[in-house]
Formats: sequence, structure tokens, C-alpha cells
Amino acid sequence: MRMAELSRTSGVPVPTIKYYLREGLLPAGQVAPPNQASYDQSHVRRLTLIRALTDVGGMSIATARVVLSVIDAPDRTVRQKLGATIGSLGDIQATGDSGGADRDEEHAQAAKTVDDLLERRGWRVDETSPARAAAAEVLARFDRLGHHRVIAALDGYADAAELTASNDLDVLAGIEDEDELVETALVGTVLGDALLAALRRLAQEHVSGSRYRTPPR
Amino acid sequence: MRMAELSRTSGVPVPTIKYYLREGLLPAGQVAPPNQASYDQSHVRRLTLIRALTDVGGMSIATARVVLSVIDAPDRTVRQKLGATIGSLGDIQATGDSGGADRDEEHAQAAKTVDDLLERRGWRVDETSPARAAAAEVLARFDRLGHHRVIAALDGYADAAELTASNDLDVLAGIEDEDELVETALVGTVLGDALLAALRRLAQEHVSGSRYRTPPR
Repeated sequence: MRMAELSRTSGVPVPTIKYYLREGLLPAGQVAPPNQASYDQSHVRRLTLIRALTDVGGMSIATARVVLSVIDAPDRTVRQKLGATIGSLGDIQATGDSGGADRDEEHAQAAKTVDDLLERRGWRVDETSPARAAAAEVLARFDRLGHHRVIAALDGYADAAELTASNDLDVLAGIEDEDELVETALVGTVLGDALLAALRRLAQEHVSGSRYRTPPR
Repeated sequence: MRMAELSRTSGVPVPTIKYYLREGLLPAGQVAPPNQASYDQSHVRRLTLIRALTDVGGMSIATARVVLSVIDAPDRTVRQKLGATIGSLGDIQATGDSGGADRDEEHAQAAKTVDDLLERRGWRVDETSPARAAAAEVLARFDRLGHHRVIAALDGYADAAELTASNDLDVLAGIEDEDELVETALVGTVLGDALLAALRRLAQEHVSGSRYRTPPR
């Protein structure tokens, strides 16, 4: 199909498709005479994936490019791809804040809170895992804002995270095709965060209603 | 303090502070002779809050402005503020995709999956709650990408969300000051999503390691 049809089929505007092509997120179409590129269902699917990661997952184009290049790499093992994909999703962009001794102290304290949590729960996690730093960064922000109650309730959130991760692995366990496995891990993690956020708000409304016994609406 | 000192104390660059002032996220300082604005600790705290929502929470400036204006409103009750805050956090920005009959059918199907989930679990949630649409939007994306295994595992994620929401309400239950309650609900939800995402990745690494018994590193 031509680009105009690709746009209609995928629902993504032509200028945006051209942008994804320039940025290397979408592979080029087959060039056919008279010198026009032709696209197929693999391009439609790729556009659907890009939009899911950026719209729903809130991922930047730059991050999406890195993640997609990892899952495209032909010379890596599944384990390497899974590790690199999940790793690249763990970073929190904390731009703009300058450092200083107070911040260093704050971050050291937050990193220790994370270490203590992992040890207390017996979670074996690599020292270099970016999710350690991401968790510490969030805890440092809670601390700076004076929301110590949330930090005190950390184990409750860890219980929920363990349940989520166990469900994640159940989903992956049934998949034999390696490409599908890597993509499910990626999409399940990125879109899964958005799904969990939505379910959390629904559950908050339910739990709040049942605890405080508001009259039925 | 002057703006330069506010910048040093908060770690936020002066041009960014001026941008937040223009956008109405940060209240103006007290104007003192000779015609220079003066800032205090409330401005430092507000900057910390803005950066937490935008850096860690990934919130746009426009969304942060809406959320902050809700918690600032002097004439609303705590319940109204809580409702409006959580409501404004539930939206997923799904820009750029054009509609079409296929999409409508897809969304109707996803909305039914959410309705069925709520009924099955006995969650009482308002018909107009934006989190319903957000959950349906994510499910529609999973469906469009062919990741039906994730949709089949929805109840596992709902279990985790219920545990999270219960923990959220435990945190809020101990707070008596109304302003603190509203801010904790906001920050706990926005930064809490980032915390849960990080803990989920840590737990994935642990669960994956213990299921497949990789040798210790």
C-alpha cells in the first residue's frame, strides 16, 4: 500500500508517519517503480506499536527508538533482549534539578531504603538494575515533600508489585515464539503500567466507597 | 528570598521558575521595594511539588496546572477536591489517532471487558469515572496488537490494583489535616504510579530469577 493508505489503515497522520521514518522508528517501505515506496501489514502493526508506546505508555520518541532497536537487533539472544528492554524502561528522567550536598544525602538515604526493602523481602536484584535508582528517586521526592506516610507503607506497595510481577511472568510463561515473548514483555510492561494505574483508580473508588459506606449512586 | 536564591534552594533554574510563574503554576512572590519580588519556603515547596509531578509523574505542564488549581481552590470541599484531583489523573491522552468504525467496535468491546470486570469483582465505580475509559483504552491497544494473553490475565492485575488501593486508603486514613489529605492523595497517586512501576521491575527480576533458578551473580 502507499503511504496515504497506510495512514488511513493505521489512523496515524501522514506527517507523523514521515517523522517516524526520519527518526528510524518505522522501517522504510519497499521502493517500487515509478519510485514510490510501498508499505505492508508489518508497517501498520509497527505504527500501532509505536502509538501504543508513546500515547498510552507516555514514552518519548527517543526512548521508543532505543527500545524498538533493541527488539529489532538480530544478533542478540532472547535473554539479552529481555534484559535490555526492561532495563531501558527503568530510567526516570529527572532533568533540570541541580545537585548539591543536600540532594546527595537525600539520595543516599533513599537508596538505603530500597536496599533494606530488597533485603527484607529476599528479592535478588542486580546491583546495576536501573529500577533500583528509579525507586530511590521516587522515594527521595516523597521525602522532600514530607510525605513520610507513603514511605512507611512501602511494604504494602511491594506486596502489590510482587503480585503484579508474578502475573507478568504467568503471561510470559505460555509463549514459545521468541519474538512474541520479547514484544509481550515490552508491551505488557509499558501498557501494563497504564492498565495498572487505571485499575488502581477504579479500585480506589471501590475501596473508598466500601470503607466509608457512601450511599449508592 | 530573591529569585536567584529560590533557584539555588529548590534546584530549579531561573528561566524554568519564570516559565512556571507565567503559566500560573507558581504563585507570584511578594513585591517589595525597590520593586523586586520576594519568595519564601512556600515557593520552594511548590517548586518541589511541580517538579515531582512533571519529572517523576511525567505530567504535562497543562495537566499540572489543572491539578494544582483544583487543590488550591478555596471554595471546594475536601471530597470535591479529592474527586476532581483523581478524576483529572485518570485521562489518557490518545491524540493523533483518527476514528473509524473498526476503532468504535474495538472500543465498545474493550469497554464491555471493563464493565464485566467491575461487575465480576463487585467494584462500585461511577459510570462517568475517567479511569473506566482509560482502562478500556489500554485494553483496546493490547487487543489491536494481538496481546490477548494480557487481557486474559486481567483479574490478576485487578487483584494487585485492589491491594494497592487498600494500601493507598490506609495511608490516607491517618491524616487529619484537610490540605495534607488532598496533597497526599495527589502525590501518592502520581508518584505512587512511578514507585509501583519501579517496584514491579524489581519484583519481575526477583520472580524471574527464582522461577528459573539462574545461578547467583
